Amino acid sequence: MTFDLKSYISNQNELINGFLESAIPEKNQDQRIVAAMKYSLMAGGKRLRPVLCVAAAEAVGGEPTDALPAAGALEMVHTYSLIHDDLPAMDDDELRRGKPTCHVAFDEATAILAGDALLTLAFQILSSVEISNASHAAAWLKVIRTIASAAGYGGMIQGQMLDISSEGRTLTMAELESMHHLKTGALIAASLRCGAIIGGANDEQLTSLERYANNTGLAFQVADDILNVEGDPELMGKAVGTDQLREKSTYPSILGLKESKELAHHLVHKALQAIENFDNRSDALRAIAKYIIERKR
Amino acid sequence: MTFDLKSYISNQNELINGFLESAIPEKNQDQRIVAAMKYSLMAGGKRLRPVLCVAAAEAVGGEPTDALPAAGALEMVHTYSLIHDDLPAMDDDELRRGKPTCHVAFDEATAILAGDALLTLAFQILSSVEISNASHAAAWLKVIRTIASAAGYGGMIQGQMLDISSEGRTLTMAELESMHHLKTGALIAASLRCGAIIGGANDEQLTSLERYANNTGLAFQVADDILNVEGDPELMGKAVGTDQLREKSTYPSILGLKESKELAHHLVHKALQAIENFDNRSDALRAIAKYIIERKR
Repeated sequence: MTFDLKSYISNQNELINGFLESAIPEKNQDQRIVAAMKYSLMAGGKRLRPVLCVAAAEAVGGEPTDALPAAGALEMVHTYSLIHDDLPAMDDDELRRGKPTCHVAFDEATAILAGDALLTLAFQILSSVEISNASHAAAWLKVIRTIASAAGYGGMIQGQMLDISSEGRTLTMAELESMHHLKTGALIAASLRCGAIIGGANDEQLTSLERYANNTGLAFQVADDILNVEGDPELMGKAVGTDQLREKSTYPSILGLKESKELAHHLVHKALQAIENFDNRSDALRAIAKYIIERKR
Repeated sequence: MTFDLKSYISNQNELINGFLESAIPEKNQDQRIVAAMKYSLMAGGKRLRPVLCVAAAEAVGGEPTDALPAAGALEMVHTYSLIHDDLPAMDDDELRRGKPTCHVAFDEATAILAGDALLTLAFQILSSVEISNASHAAAWLKVIRTIASAAGYGGMIQGQMLDISSEGRTLTMAELESMHHLKTGALIAASLRCGAIIGGANDEQLTSLERYANNTGLAFQVADDILNVEGDPELMGKAVGTDQLREKSTYPSILGLKESKELAHHLVHKALQAIENFDNRSDALRAIAKYIIERKR
């Protein structure tokens, strides 16, 4: 029997979207800042990080719903990074997920502050979880540390700095890999790690999930680069061919399209290998790894 | 015997600056993002929030050095907010603490990311404190929650939104007070609250310190508005008269200079009253409240 990823993701997305909707209180709805936060947060992303977080909790025998605050916080951190990356001073993008970017729909000041507010709200949510016992409190401090260090200047932010500074020059394979590892990989790895911590993983499980995460994260980026070359702009809700226009170094530009596809398959194979000893509660993680290179958007 | 505030602040600043210097590892010094973070963080601010945090811990009988991680995090959150407020899309300021603002010294993208990185690092530090027991872990989660909610869209960020949207129109006293309460007061109150939590305050002490905080925070803002009218730009390290140029509503513009000074004195009096039952371990808090309206920068 094959795992039904489509209904798994659709069920998870319903839970996660419900959590995100309720995370910003109704009474503040009239504020412009809240409108901007909700606009970007509810713009219909893939919710990859939350799904990975919940699936990791499940894979190590935890209760998936326990991971929801972390899943929601991870999506907020991801959304904040997209809002700021899209700003005129950064990538200057006007379209995201098929809709005008936050600074286009609102204005630049509001977009900067909406990003700041989502990043801050993530930590507010993570520190507001009801604590049942001592090891529970310590676990949530660990979750906060994991997300903050993945998102910070030693992780995602450094990746964005490298991305900005590398436009217009050709990167080596090693530089490209390091950039993606920081810019995308760190938060994806954090998503799995947080789910695993909340699910009560042992050290061996944490190590396996880290290997799964690193390979899946990189595969995701390679697939993204491939989609930017041959994807359907209508399905993706954003322009394609933009990397080439900006003379960005990508896997296809360095390795060629065929080699890039082979690399993506190889990475997914390594991700699956990392969790081969896990039982069927990690079927979702297996299906996600395969999906990452088959997706059309 | 009068309390020697000057040497108290100078001692505290040495501890706090030492903590901040060591919070960003040496090995990353060569990165542009780290240079920008350090540039703004070590630009010689007054360290008001850290000092209040440490003094509050002391006032309720706690160990001042235990509060250092919170003190450092509060200064990072404050510095991030200054970097983002100074951006061209916001207040478009070129001078801060006598030096070019972050986006002038570096560039806009780096300034946005340096602010993001300082905000994120604050939460990384708060969640990395060595935990000795269960109630300790719960206390630090409370500290994180306190700072995140004061800094977020229901606090400081909302205050900045109000500030931006109010330029060029006259505010009522109530609107002005609410704007400052959010923009400056919330984080000042959080500073005292965090120190109190770490120092092991009881509910009565927390309430008294909250009253102290609200009055001190507002007095600080009134004094700031007065300094923008009659301060010495050389002592302050920034231009004066800028509020009037921008047609910003301020206490002097609404109440007049004389009434504003009376209000500031009245607020400091109320702050002192709030902690009148505290013993001499809160002498620093008393001296700070008085200093706020006597300062020249």
